Amino acid sequence: MVVPKIIKKGSFEHKDLVSMEQLSERDILLILDTARTFKEISLRRVKKVPALQGKTVINLFFEPSTRTRTSFEIAAKRLSADIINITSSASAVVKGETLMDTAQTLMAMKPDFMIMRHSFSGSARFLSRIVPASVLNAGDGINEHPTQALLDMYTMRESNKRFEGLKVAIVGDIAHSRVARSNIIGLNKMGAKVMLVGPKTLIPYNVEKMNVTVTHNLKEAVGWADVVMMLRIQLERLTEGLFPSIREYSMLYGLNREVLRYLKRDAIIMHPGPINRNIEISPDVVNDERCVILNQVENGVAVRMAVLFLLGGKQKVSLE
Amino acid sequence: MVVPKIIKKGSFEHKDLVSMEQLSERDILLILDTARTFKEISLRRVKKVPALQGKTVINLFFEPSTRTRTSFEIAAKRLSADIINITSSASAVVKGETLMDTAQTLMAMKPDFMIMRHSFSGSARFLSRIVPASVLNAGDGINEHPTQALLDMYTMRESNKRFEGLKVAIVGDIAHSRVARSNIIGLNKMGAKVMLVGPKTLIPYNVEKMNVTVTHNLKEAVGWADVVMMLRIQLERLTEGLFPSIREYSMLYGLNREVLRYLKRDAIIMHPGPINRNIEISPDVVNDERCVILNQVENGVAVRMAVLFLLGGKQKVSLE
Amino acid sequence: MVVPKIIKKGSFEHKDLVSMEQLSERDILLILDTARTFKEISLRRVKKVPALQGKTVINLFFEPSTRTRTSFEIAAKRLSADIINITSSASAVVKGETLMDTAQTLMAMKPDFMIMRHSFSGSARFLSRIVPASVLNAGDGINEHPTQALLDMYTMRESNKRFEGLKVAIVGDIAHSRVARSNIIGLNKMGAKVMLVGPKTLIPYNVEKMNVTVTHNLKEAVGWADVVMMLRIQLERLTEGLFPSIREYSMLYGLNREVLRYLKRDAIIMHPGPINRNIEISPDVVNDERCVILNQVENGVAVRMAVLFLLGGKQKVSLE
Repeated sequence: MVVPKIIKKGSFEHKDLVSMEQLSERDILLILDTARTFKEISLRRVKKVPALQGKTVINLFFEPSTRTRTSFEIAAKRLSADIINITSSASAVVKGETLMDTAQTLMAMKPDFMIMRHSFSGSARFLSRIVPASVLNAGDGINEHPTQALLDMYTMRESNKRFEGLKVAIVGDIAHSRVARSNIIGLNKMGAKVMLVGPKTLIPYNVEKMNVTVTHNLKEAVGWADVVMMLRIQLERLTEGLFPSIREYSMLYGLNREVLRYLKRDAIIMHPGPINRNIEISPDVVNDERCVILNQVENGVAVRMAVLFLLGGKQKVSLE
Repeated sequence: MVVPKIIKKGSFEHKDLVSMEQLSERDILLILDTARTFKEISLRRVKKVPALQGKTVINLFFEPSTRTRTSFEIAAKRLSADIINITSSASAVVKGETLMDTAQTLMAMKPDFMIMRHSFSGSARFLSRIVPASVLNAGDGINEHPTQALLDMYTMRESNKRFEGLKVAIVGDIAHSRVARSNIIGLNKMGAKVMLVGPKTLIPYNVEKMNVTVTHNLKEAVGWADVVMMLRIQLERLTEGLFPSIREYSMLYGLNREVLRYLKRDAIIMHPGPINRNIEISPDVVNDERCVILNQVENGVAVRMAVLFLLGGKQKVSLE
Repeated sequence: MVVPKIIKKGSFEHKDLVSMEQLSERDILLILDTARTFKEISLRRVKKVPALQGKTVINLFFEPSTRTRTSFEIAAKRLSADIINITSSASAVVKGETLMDTAQTLMAMKPDFMIMRHSFSGSARFLSRIVPASVLNAGDGINEHPTQALLDMYTMRESNKRFEGLKVAIVGDIAHSRVARSNIIGLNKMGAKVMLVGPKTLIPYNVEKMNVTVTHNLKEAVGWADVVMMLRIQLERLTEGLFPSIREYSMLYGLNREVLRYLKRDAIIMHPGPINRNIEISPDVVNDERCVILNQVENGVAVRMAVLFLLGGKQKVSLE
């Protein structure tokens, strides 16, 4: 088994990853560097290192998810951890139990990590305060989704982008997007410039505090950007009257062949997935060579391995 | 890897654990002693021993469960077994198939253990008779839930209680509780005294054969007991007219701050979970230092490791 | 750990198993020979070999299944692979995503194998063309279910049947059965003779191209056959008016004690399960010593281990 380059540890001092807010510029770079080392493991013939052997990971998903749950599960298994999936649909997580009681009950079984997705903003921080296990926020309401921002930043860097002065346009339903929020926080820390693009109803009310610019003109943003990050339109928002129709939204804010003409030659197109083809993004765009959506997914496994490793690293694990 | 104290085997002669009835006093003590050895494994940095390496465990849950399913899954993984989850909600276990056919089909895949929860009383014994695998009853209808009774007894002992003459009050819906039934049987074998507390409609009709006393007065029971075991009220019983209202039930049989004044200083409060806060138990009580609910959960993993180990021990496994 | 006989490799040149069409007579014999070696592993005290250590298997089930999903999961675990279950009921596999996008997303996480069940005929071939992972078809619509045919053929051979000239009667809803289709193709390749038995509405429209004979008389077929393969009646077909009533179907095409009198003494009875007792097969028949239904299930694990091993074998794995 080939040994990846030794990772310097002792330098990541967090118990949990609940928010991009908690990370310093140095923390972010450490995670991205560690992820680069781990990315190679998934390309080996034997995709497994014993770094987290004998550790217990609970994957606690109160909202349905395939991509994120699977990505964390694969990351944990490639580090040789034992992972237990708990989903609120497959089992009665609660039977009326509070999150506090669920958390304490699961904690009594001595997991080392609890990865949680929950529809309440702030739930991950709440959990991190009541359990000694390392908590990984896999999405809490409309608040944050830090591993998504980290894999996005990994992908930007891998595409030869330097964060300092990097121009990132985030397009779509910013107000309800934990992906956007985590990216805005992280990119700001790294010195990137963020422009938000969308109809007024989908721009956060407190946008002036976010150190971003705002436009309602997609072509302008696309022409400006080094990175265009499209968000997923959640069709259930339609019923809330936040935008008039899919067709109108798509005409104004969908990335299609026509808009693509404004995009710089060395820019990249990102999307957290799953994509709604022909709504926020057209098939031409998905096939464009500047589109790095699948790289994002691949990097997601590496970034999550890195985060699990660094959080677990406080307890001195060895990577062989 | 630190080796736990060597466990004397050859002394546990059962293929299955379907009922507390089948266990002798000596069997119960052997399980509790073995669990004490295993409890330490969950506190290690590497929470895993190869005792059941290469064994296959099927976790067959026909009723939803998070706590018990997860507890067994963690126990099996910490013993290095392979565990396969089958839940009737996530997949069509049956498509009209009988339990007999499902059991024989799964058995043909050569599992070593089948852990089953099923809504029919007697289903675990039925299963144990038709398959050569070790069957662990994880709850069968209103009949038994033996690992729950064992973890409860472990927790009593850990709290410095001696079973001989120990006064245990079980409060709530005794008639429909497999937890109560398994505890009554086990505690009787160990020489404890059991008092049942609840409205007449929730006391079993054949109570006089159970070697217990009955009261309808919670304060009296709480004042008498060394152990107060609250049961979960299953709200669906309400519709069956077995008690008039949640509020009235809670006033008469809920453990709250006022009732707590009658409790001995060295008594303990137990609950199998998940708890209905403010119905059978008030938040004050959960936070009382005599409340050992989370110890019960922690001990559940250890007791289930012990039972898996002892049942698998017949086939000579080594604990390293 | 006892080492199974060394398997000659380099001789199985397929990336995927999507169809019995793709397999030569020599391929089929290689799979069956390999499965014989693997069958022994499930009978060991330690049921595990490190053949696929560090490989990632995705079990992607868009239709509910217990038996096939569990069989593949046990096969993968006994080869020491990591397996991730994704079911469309337990999680929103798609949220409107196309199969193409789901496949590419999962592929970006670098699995070595993707096992898929999907309701669309042709979906497995489609998947195999867009992902570099080895694709195993676990049932695609009414098209094929190749590992079922292979385990059926393994079971025939194990029952001392030679394929050349072997008389196989397949009974029931042939038109909608992927099990029947895969068996017809495989048995034809091996020189067996196939007779289809069922009402006209359940015989495929293109039957004359299938190199089979057809009868509507069950007794005639049972008297002729060395192997009687009963299919599962899918009760939802009733509503489509394809047969008049369960009772009438059962009288004409159910295998019961009376029809059994026509069966040769050394013939065998098969069924892919789960069985509908008293519809396509009566309890007497299930208990008849010529019935090999449970052998089929047991052999399913061995055949799936063999297929995983041979497909993975291209990447030079060692079996220790």
